[in-house]
Amino acid sequence: MLSEKNKILVDSIKRLIRRGAISHLRKIVNKTHAADLSVVFRSLSLQNQKRLFNMIDDIDQKGVLFSELDEDTFIDLVEDINLDSLVDILENMQTDDVADLIARLPEDKSSAILERMEKEDSEEVEDLLRYDDDTAGGIMVPEFIALNQEMTAKQAIESLQTEHQDVEMPFYLYVTDDNDCLMGVISLRQLVVVAPDTPLKEFMTTEVISVQPGVDQEEVARIVARYDILAVPVVDENRHLMGIVTVDDVIDIFRQEATEDILKMAGAGEEFVETKSVIRSTRIRLPWLFASCIGGILAFFIIGSFEESLAKYAYLAAFIPVIMGMGGNIGTQSSTIVVRGLATGRLNIRDLWPVVFKELSVGIILGLVYGTMIGLVAHIHYNRVELAVSVSLAVISSMSIAALVGSLVPMIFARLNIDPAVATGPFVTTSIDIISVFFYFQIATILLGV
Amino acid sequence: MLSEKNKILVDSIKRLIRRGAISHLRKIVNKTHAADLSVVFRSLSLQNQKRLFNMIDDIDQKGVLFSELDEDTFIDLVEDINLDSLVDILENMQTDDVADLIARLPEDKSSAILERMEKEDSEEVEDLLRYDDDTAGGIMVPEFIALNQEMTAKQAIESLQTEHQDVEMPFYLYVTDDNDCLMGVISLRQLVVVAPDTPLKEFMTTEVISVQPGVDQEEVARIVARYDILAVPVVDENRHLMGIVTVDDVIDIFRQEATEDILKMAGAGEEFVETKSVIRSTRIRLPWLFASCIGGILAFFIIGSFEESLAKYAYLAAFIPVIMGMGGNIGTQSSTIVVRGLATGRLNIRDLWPVVFKELSVGIILGLVYGTMIGLVAHIHYNRVELAVSVSLAVISSMSIAALVGSLVPMIFARLNIDPAVATGPFVTTSIDIISVFFYFQIATILLGV
Repeated sequence: MLSEKNKILVDSIKRLIRRGAISHLRKIVNKTHAADLSVVFRSLSLQNQKRLFNMIDDIDQKGVLFSELDEDTFIDLVEDINLDSLVDILENMQTDDVADLIARLPEDKSSAILERMEKEDSEEVEDLLRYDDDTAGGIMVPEFIALNQEMTAKQAIESLQTEHQDVEMPFYLYVTDDNDCLMGVISLRQLVVVAPDTPLKEFMTTEVISVQPGVDQEEVARIVARYDILAVPVVDENRHLMGIVTVDDVIDIFRQEATEDILKMAGAGEEFVETKSVIRSTRIRLPWLFASCIGGILAFFIIGSFEESLAKYAYLAAFIPVIMGMGGNIGTQSSTIVVRGLATGRLNIRDLWPVVFKELSVGIILGLVYGTMIGLVAHIHYNRVELAVSVSLAVISSMSIAALVGSLVPMIFARLNIDPAVATGPFVTTSIDIISVFFYFQIATILLGV
Repeated sequence: MLSEKNKILVDSIKRLIRRGAISHLRKIVNKTHAADLSVVFRSLSLQNQKRLFNMIDDIDQKGVLFSELDEDTFIDLVEDINLDSLVDILENMQTDDVADLIARLPEDKSSAILERMEKEDSEEVEDLLRYDDDTAGGIMVPEFIALNQEMTAKQAIESLQTEHQDVEMPFYLYVTDDNDCLMGVISLRQLVVVAPDTPLKEFMTTEVISVQPGVDQEEVARIVARYDILAVPVVDENRHLMGIVTVDDVIDIFRQEATEDILKMAGAGEEFVETKSVIRSTRIRLPWLFASCIGGILAFFIIGSFEESLAKYAYLAAFIPVIMGMGGNIGTQSSTIVVRGLATGRLNIRDLWPVVFKELSVGIILGLVYGTMIGLVAHIHYNRVELAVSVSLAVISSMSIAALVGSLVPMIFARLNIDPAVATGPFVTTSIDIISVFFYFQIATILLGV
């Protein structure tokens, strides 16, 4: 298991650090994949991170480590590295990763780095920095292979052997016309299979799926996933090839977006806070609880307005939790299903009414089931039919309204181009709480005849 | 945008169906990528799905469509297709996709299909069916290229040109010894770059990351993501190459696991229900609400036991929603952060106490902030210090306990090898509700001196 492997690695590195076994440590650090080292780093103090980092001999490994580290760790670590070594490491990395890192650094540091980099490299980085880092332009890499359509297969193979050494993983070979416009794509596989003197244009695939640089990264990821491709070319409005987005970045996008959605739905911010300090993580979470605080205070005024009923029938209060809980839970079910359905493309924004109607039906059925059950418990305990009916009706209305609100709000938000995940958590739950409590006391007041 | 493209496609296909424009429809169906068609199918009746399906000329397209369809749609669609055409389509598909589809069909149908398939194909499928479909063995494909390490680069290229035509996308070439044991890996790129008479063993990468067939698919996906590779070989205990898991499957795994986690955390089942009928989706969601129903009934008995306090101070009831709401929300934050942190590897199961301690600190700080605020509102409204203090203390204790329970429960579940996502939603919220309500009435009863 990956996690067991990590555990063993963390343990042995910590032991070696305690013992001060430098040469041993150096050996293990240089034998370990940088992706694994980045996990070890999470368990080490900054001081030990720096010691370990300086032990790495291979400049490529340092680069991989940089791109795998958490944002805060990277910023801390980089502070002690002198500018020249830093520039050396960055120049050996993939351009999109460099752009990501530089965007995280303070202005003065990042411009100092860009100045020292080779002109060609720094220009490529600056090109990427021009785009939002969650668009195709911000995540594309300029490392791709483009060949003229008149070339033969043999010439193409020769050019692979002599040029394009910077392209580490040539997924596809893009084929262009004399104006550098994207005309087709061929796989390496096709290249070695056809007769050597066949021109590329004769066997290239001409229907190339491509995106423009402004396209949102989630959209790019969905395209790569839908068509099972390894990379998607980014082209400008004249179909000039600007870069490619590769499948490894697509995986990262999906994981990152899933995390963001999950956190937003839970009303826990948009970024993962657990690796931050208590104070920072408190500050990020604080505002997300505000909606539920305001909602709770509203509910307090609503219940306060029924004080007369409560004074007469104190036991009415005992059913507040179950009514709020059932409503809240089915509302969360509905909104989660809708938000995830929209994110994965299983639900379509256009189907607003069918989706909401279906959720409402489910809410009514489940409301009837649980409303009857809870009403029965109330009846057995207090032996008052009006109370049992009030509670039943309150559960049924609470659950139906919750399913309605829980599905309607995210669908409407999506239509208005507001991220439905943000809308879902505290917002939906809080509104459901307030509505449920109001209906409950209204029904009870009428039926019990206060 | 992908979704706009779909919208246009769905609209034009529906229009053509209404008009009965068969030849037009046939043209558009055969021009559209099967992955896009599968989206259109979701908006069509079964009858129209069948009509469209029969218009597809290309057998490969039919295969892609099969593997992209929702489970229910596939089963319905397949019913009308005669066995021979079905077998034809399946034999042209990737083995792992065929195994997935066959596993969905009823026993009699699947054995009939396997009998009619060519022996080699059906054996490969049955090999895959032997493994759990969420393990490396269940998702691997037998389509890979393995070459003997003594071969030269030139011979390897020749073998690509003559054999292995069934391998559509040769990510890597695996290198084996005379016993068919995995010894190394080379990329197509390396193959065309080295001198033609170099033996493979001289330039292959010998440190190959591989997995055994029983490894969980999530683990496989994490390995592919961590090391940024395009495929991972599956080997038995003697390092015999059995198959490969490719990056396109890894993307699907991450998306599927994220959806499952999100649904479980929201207490909405483990599978996406929105595409199912109202009755089926009600049945799946029903049991997940049971925990919260039981919890609500427990809370009812707890509050009932404080009936005396309530009869005296009816306004105590007015604060139940805000106390439950604040506790529930911060509990959801904590459990979500922990569950997602464990899923992405940002948090380690071993760090139970640091994680829980940190969450508790955050809970206490946020409790103090919101407790003071809500206490002030109570004081302004009722002008009773004891009440204000009771409410403040209840919010503080509720939020602290919620953060504690919300982080502790998923950490413990993960240690016990129970999926923490299941534990999180209704279970945590319900326990927090009960504890919060109990503490509130206990504190109020003491302070107000009932």
